[in-house]
Amino acid sequence: MDATHYKLMIPGPIELDPAILAEMGKPLAAHYGPEWVRFYRETVSLLKRVMLAERARVFPVAGPGTAAIEMAIGGVVGDGKKVLVATNGFFGDRLAQIARAYTTHVATLEIPWGQPLDPQQLDDALKQDPEIRAVALVHCETSTGVLNPLKELAEVCNQRGALCLVDAVSSLGGAELRFDEWGLGAIASATQKGLECPPGLAPVAFSPEAWEVVESTESPQWYLSPKTWAWYEEQWGEWHPHPTTMPSGLMSALHLSLTRILEEGLEARWARHERVAQALRKGLEALGFAPVAREERYASPTVTAMRTPEGVEAGTILRFLKEELGVLIGGGLGQLKGKAIRVGHMGPTARMGEIVSLLYGVEEALRHQGRTIEPGQALRGARA
Amino acid sequence: MDATHYKLMIPGPIELDPAILAEMGKPLAAHYGPEWVRFYRETVSLLKRVMLAERARVFPVAGPGTAAIEMAIGGVVGDGKKVLVATNGFFGDRLAQIARAYTTHVATLEIPWGQPLDPQQLDDALKQDPEIRAVALVHCETSTGVLNPLKELAEVCNQRGALCLVDAVSSLGGAELRFDEWGLGAIASATQKGLECPPGLAPVAFSPEAWEVVESTESPQWYLSPKTWAWYEEQWGEWHPHPTTMPSGLMSALHLSLTRILEEGLEARWARHERVAQALRKGLEALGFAPVAREERYASPTVTAMRTPEGVEAGTILRFLKEELGVLIGGGLGQLKGKAIRVGHMGPTARMGEIVSLLYGVEEALRHQGRTIEPGQALRGARA
Repeated sequence: MDATHYKLMIPGPIELDPAILAEMGKPLAAHYGPEWVRFYRETVSLLKRVMLAERARVFPVAGPGTAAIEMAIGGVVGDGKKVLVATNGFFGDRLAQIARAYTTHVATLEIPWGQPLDPQQLDDALKQDPEIRAVALVHCETSTGVLNPLKELAEVCNQRGALCLVDAVSSLGGAELRFDEWGLGAIASATQKGLECPPGLAPVAFSPEAWEVVESTESPQWYLSPKTWAWYEEQWGEWHPHPTTMPSGLMSALHLSLTRILEEGLEARWARHERVAQALRKGLEALGFAPVAREERYASPTVTAMRTPEGVEAGTILRFLKEELGVLIGGGLGQLKGKAIRVGHMGPTARMGEIVSLLYGVEEALRHQGRTIEPGQALRGARA
Repeated sequence: MDATHYKLMIPGPIELDPAILAEMGKPLAAHYGPEWVRFYRETVSLLKRVMLAERARVFPVAGPGTAAIEMAIGGVVGDGKKVLVATNGFFGDRLAQIARAYTTHVATLEIPWGQPLDPQQLDDALKQDPEIRAVALVHCETSTGVLNPLKELAEVCNQRGALCLVDAVSSLGGAELRFDEWGLGAIASATQKGLECPPGLAPVAFSPEAWEVVESTESPQWYLSPKTWAWYEEQWGEWHPHPTTMPSGLMSALHLSLTRILEEGLEARWARHERVAQALRKGLEALGFAPVAREERYASPTVTAMRTPEGVEAGTILRFLKEELGVLIGGGLGQLKGKAIRVGHMGPTARMGEIVSLLYGVEEALRHQGRTIEPGQALRGARA
């Protein structure tokens, strides 16, 4: 669409590797037939390996991440079950909106933006209301850059007999996530973030325990009903194992990116994202920014949100970076509008070279507004 | 995914023009911000021109065509209104499945496969049951190659005060469709057929009359609720006029293809598809095939379904064309399995050169099975 291409360091979509873009430019394959089925199953199996979800039922839903989240929530509580939405940001609030479309029994646990969801508070809420059968929450809250302590939160859910339904849109592929081991009920993600592809596919996974609930739940959904997907997999599995046309070019891109993610190794990859995020935080702190995530250990490895220094409007930084560096970063959402910048560092942009370049741009932007910044001030912070 | 590329003459996705593929291979743009909003609005406005739907609200939903159909059906009858599904094929039956997910009041008008939906029968059904507030039907029934007489069917709906909700997945862009003039309530389509793009976007249009109903309908949907889309358009219109991430590369491809469709001219384009479809039918008839569409004037200009000659299993034709010509066509669905072939001829493959080449392949396939076919027998039929 644009005459100019801007490098994407918004919280997604991310800047893509040329090999992934090349897949998108190839002639399309048909989305059925024996070759397709083999390829489709292989891709689902790669997804399971990246999700560490060998026990799960996984569907690469065509659509945005939100659609896959709706599939998980609707599929589990679409008959009116009681669900608790634990939220500490814009995307957590969205989970509550989605849940309310399916059931009138939606409780919320609201935590201030910037703070992590607290397993103890979750436990108290579940203890008080044993009717709650499912908890919906966001792993990486893209609006604040907080990575919620999912392992501990899921443990609480499991102890209290509630399924843990997780928005993993901006965490999968960049942050530690162990589906089976952590006992997650369902996760939904999207291709345009840590999975390093264009947007358009939204992988969703259900544990065997969640699947049992799905099977006994009548939900007002067709395309986004997990049961529709299961029916096609079971009845049309040898020919067309999904209910609709699939974007075959994007599936090819996903197959390639998943293969590369596994080649890099999940733990090495999580560590790389963590290192880069830390460098960016420290670099921006040296320029007077403050992390929105109140505690260092809950700062996300994939998305960094930082309050701007006193008197600096976030939009001026965004504009400067766009015009002078050709780089797009995000601004604050909701209550952080104008007050924070948000940077996505996933896949190809989770590299020190990109971070250093961005820090240089922010230094220049501040200097441009008359602030006194020593050249390299941010980099010294980042290296500290 | 494949080492070999096969030319797609299945009923969709279609073979793409290199310029469209080139758009898919470009670096992504962000799906928000002022440049994006301008581009998004321009694309929606091009869609309206191709739909002849200047009065409509149009959303380019990210997902498959079925998702957009569900948005139209759920948005209108999701509160339990009575809907009539008129069906004469596999995709008509699917509309009934979708409708049943949203309301227990689903009546059906079932017409044998191969016959068109009959406006008189529809009128009788609506007269008998004045509670029916909406009719769902397929314009081009991809399973049979029947193009239902949409103009007349919509007229009946309007006279009886029911909204006409249309699956236009395989008709828009290849067959005559006049949204405003015909008084359609809603249509849903998809990018991978007559709109000449990869799959992944599903444009949906609502008339002002349908929109009024949508606004007063509480439907258990979030992502696929037309109201969610309207909310973002109204509240976030200057920045992010849709509820989720959009596949920006595919939107660029769509912008280009819509521009080219309008350059060709809608009427010239409909006529081209019609000519090519007729040539294919006549050519195959000369080889002993019989159209599934019982009456010539209801045969689709975009998808042709033909019963194979007595004793010829459809699969053998499909395999021969794939192996010897490198061309993929479709087989029969449901009750036509093994008994029919289905050919998609849309956009770049709605050209006589492609049809002639395909007819040659079918001649060879029959000869290969020991049938006596004169070389050029099909072509003589096609030219007649």
